[in-house]
Order: sequence, then C-alpha cells, then structure tokens
Amino acid sequence: MNHKNIKENIRIVLSRTSHPGNIGAAARAMKTMGLSRLHLVAPKHFPDPDATARASGADDVLENARVFDTLEAALDGSAFSVAVTARRRDLSHEVHDPREAAKMLLDVAAHREVALLFGTEMSGLTTEEIGKCQVICTIPSNPQFSSLNLASAVQILAYELNMVGTETLAAPQLDLATSEEIEHFYRHLEETLIGIGFLDPDAPKRLMQRMRRLFSRTRLERNEVNILRGILRDLTKHGRE
Amino acid sequence: MNHKNIKENIRIVLSRTSHPGNIGAAARAMKTMGLSRLHLVAPKHFPDPDATARASGADDVLENARVFDTLEAALDGSAFSVAVTARRRDLSHEVHDPREAAKMLLDVAAHREVALLFGTEMSGLTTEEIGKCQVICTIPSNPQFSSLNLASAVQILAYELNMVGTETLAAPQLDLATSEEIEHFYRHLEETLIGIGFLDPDAPKRLMQRMRRLFSRTRLERNEVNILRGILRDLTKHGRE
Repeated sequence: MNHKNIKENIRIVLSRTSHPGNIGAAARAMKTMGLSRLHLVAPKHFPDPDATARASGADDVLENARVFDTLEAALDGSAFSVAVTARRRDLSHEVHDPREAAKMLLDVAAHREVALLFGTEMSGLTTEEIGKCQVICTIPSNPQFSSLNLASAVQILAYELNMVGTETLAAPQLDLATSEEIEHFYRHLEETLIGIGFLDPDAPKRLMQRMRRLFSRTRLERNEVNILRGILRDLTKHGRE
Repeated sequence: MNHKNIKENIRIVLSRTSHPGNIGAAARAMKTMGLSRLHLVAPKHFPDPDATARASGADDVLENARVFDTLEAALDGSAFSVAVTARRRDLSHEVHDPREAAKMLLDVAAHREVALLFGTEMSGLTTEEIGKCQVICTIPSNPQFSSLNLASAVQILAYELNMVGTETLAAPQLDLATSEEIEHFYRHLEETLIGIGFLDPDAPKRLMQRMRRLFSRTRLERNEVNILRGILRDLTKHGRE
C-alpha cells in the first residue's frame, strides 16, 4: 500500500465542535497535508457558510465529511484511535508527542483504519471520550499558555503525519564547479589582490585562507565562478586604463 | 543561555499581512510555543479588533508587536534569517524543511538574533524579500493543495522550534554579520561593479541577485564582511590612481 492510500485509512474526528469556522479551517489543514476523511460528532452548526469560507478551497473535504450523533459511531471500524488532549489525566494512558503518535498511526494505517480525535474548543475531550481511544497525544506547548486553536492542533498532527512519509526535500540539482575551476579562481583572486596592493605577498597573513574558508562554505557553482572571474578580469582592465 | 532566553532571540516577521485576524492567530500560535517577539512589516490593518479577537489571550504578543515600514528595518540586527515559502524559485537558495530550519535557527539563536519571515496570504514572499534571507524553509505539503493558512504555517514552525526543546544547543560561536552590515556590503559591491563597468545599471540582468544568492549561502561573518569591503575600497582607490 503506498503512502497516499495509507492516508485514506486515517480519519480525523472532531467532537462537538462549537464554531463551524474551525471545522472549515481544520478541513483546510487536513487537505494541505493530503488527508481527506473528516468525521464530525454532533457539531453545533454544520454545514455552515463559516465552515465553507474558512475551508478556502478544501470544500471537497467538507462535502465528504460525515456527521454522527455519537463518538462510538464516528470511531466505528477504527483499529487504533489516538486522543489529542492538552490536559494530563488520571487515566494512565500512554502519552505520546505528535511525532510519535504520527508514526504509530501510520504503522497501523498501513493495514487497518485509524482515527485521530480532537475535542471541543473550550474544554477539549471528556474522560469518557478519551477512554474510547488507545493512546493520548499531547502537543508540547508553553505551560503558561497551552491553548492551541483547534485547527492549529489538527494542522500540527496532519503535518507530522505528512512528515513521516516525506524525506528531506531533495536539494536542487546544482552544477557545482570542479576543484580545478575553484583553484583557478583563487589564483586569479590572489593575483588581483596583490595587483591592487590589498595583499602583500611578503606578509600575506591569512587572507587567502580566510577567502578559501568563506567561499568553501558556499559550494560554488560553475556559473558563479565564471561571474567572479569575469569581475576580476574587468577589475584588472579597469585598473590599467 | 537557557532555552527560554534563546527563544527571546527569535523574531517572527510577517510581511504585508492583509487580514488582521491572521496576525492575531499568528500571535496565539507563537505564544502557545513560547515565542513572543512579533515584527510586522506594513500590515494592512493593525491594531485591529479582529487581531485581538483571534489572539484569544495572546494580547501581550500583539501589544509588544513592532510595526515597520520596510522589511530591512524589521530584520535589522538579525544574524540569520529564514524565509518560509511554498513556491520553488529559480534562484536555488538552500531549502530546508521546518525541522531542519528550526535546528538551524536555534543554533544561531543561542548567541545571536534570528528571524523567521512569512509573506502575504495571497502571494507569499517576493523574490526580493527572499533575497534578504539566508535560507528558505518549505513546509512539505500536498502538491495539489499547498495553501496553508498563514497562522498555520507560523504554528508549524513555532511547534518545531519548541520540539527542538531542551536539547543542549551548543554551536560554535560565530560572529555573524547583521543583515544591515550585509546590505551595506551588497550596496558597496553594486557600486563597485557599476564603477568598473561590469554591471550596467540600465540592464542589470540578475547579477546582484546571483551575488546575493552566493553570499547568503555562506552566512557571512562580521570580519569577512570587513575584509570584502576593504577589498572593494582598495579597488576603488586603485582604479582612481
């Protein structure tokens, strides 16, 4: 099963959401990370123009959203459910951060359906709701101000779910200069610096070493070496005029 | 320097934000992750009741936000600036994902000020704005729908900055040049290139952009900028003799 299909096994469940704008914003957050299945448990207002406005183009996620009366119905068929909650509970569930939770969810989602559950804006999830999940996910946050917006919490989890499958972004293919070309540049630079009297060949100090250190950090491309040598050529011409 | 103080060296810069609600939501996202310094470049409406409403308790971040006319002023004093952008550019800055970018920012922030720059809701950052930063950060997202909400993008980066967490953040102490010093260097370089006839101000092509791209990859140190400017000074003198 490829990564895209795995994501189809992940449902985001929003329980008793008060503000329809947050449902729309959550749908947008999901879609940016390739998630599409939204289950809503007893939303206060849905469908709603605020939801559509905040979805900003993730209308398909809203249109396909399913509305349930109970959390049990919304979780039906899920083999592994994670409750996202800021508060520490008596219930000694395992607690994981979003990165760990994302890995666990994707491991199971390779073969079975999974769910990621978020509570209300004001009070989060009830103990009873958490009890229907296998593990807790807590987003590490400022102990003095841990009140993440609902859609922001969805965004962070969706981002981590996407990161699991994403390797480091491939660096743009660079046409790097060869070491020979770079040595030619250094020689040209040195001659120019001597020519203008900036570098005294009898007391060079560590100027060329510093220049090498500076330019070696950049990994010079071929066309950059050509531009730099072009500048040095014109400098020399200009000095002679 | 402890982790809390390190975060005080991080400024979030929002350029030309259209909707004040997004400024408030960004402030909330910042505060949940322990970030407090918000710089606004020419916001359309600020202060604004929508910003306060969406900040939901992060009013202190809004109250302490500083408003600037130009990006340069907002970046003043930053030794390392990261541009967050969804779009691929011709100019191939180094591109990092949020996790890598967060580590790089915190490494520098252990000793110096750093900035994390976000563009407008509709069109993101301009090439010129990106040119004032050292590296690009791209949030991996759905290629068919990569339009993250501005505050969501801020939330993801702030989350990653917080996740780097309490690890020891020991990096070699570099005396990096400030963005102001680097801008002076670029101006000096441009004048010199015009002076020697290498750069035609009426048909500049993309020479200065290429130079910016080259030097931004190095993260120039202060003494390197001094050497480079010393060379430019002596070149000018030499040309006049």
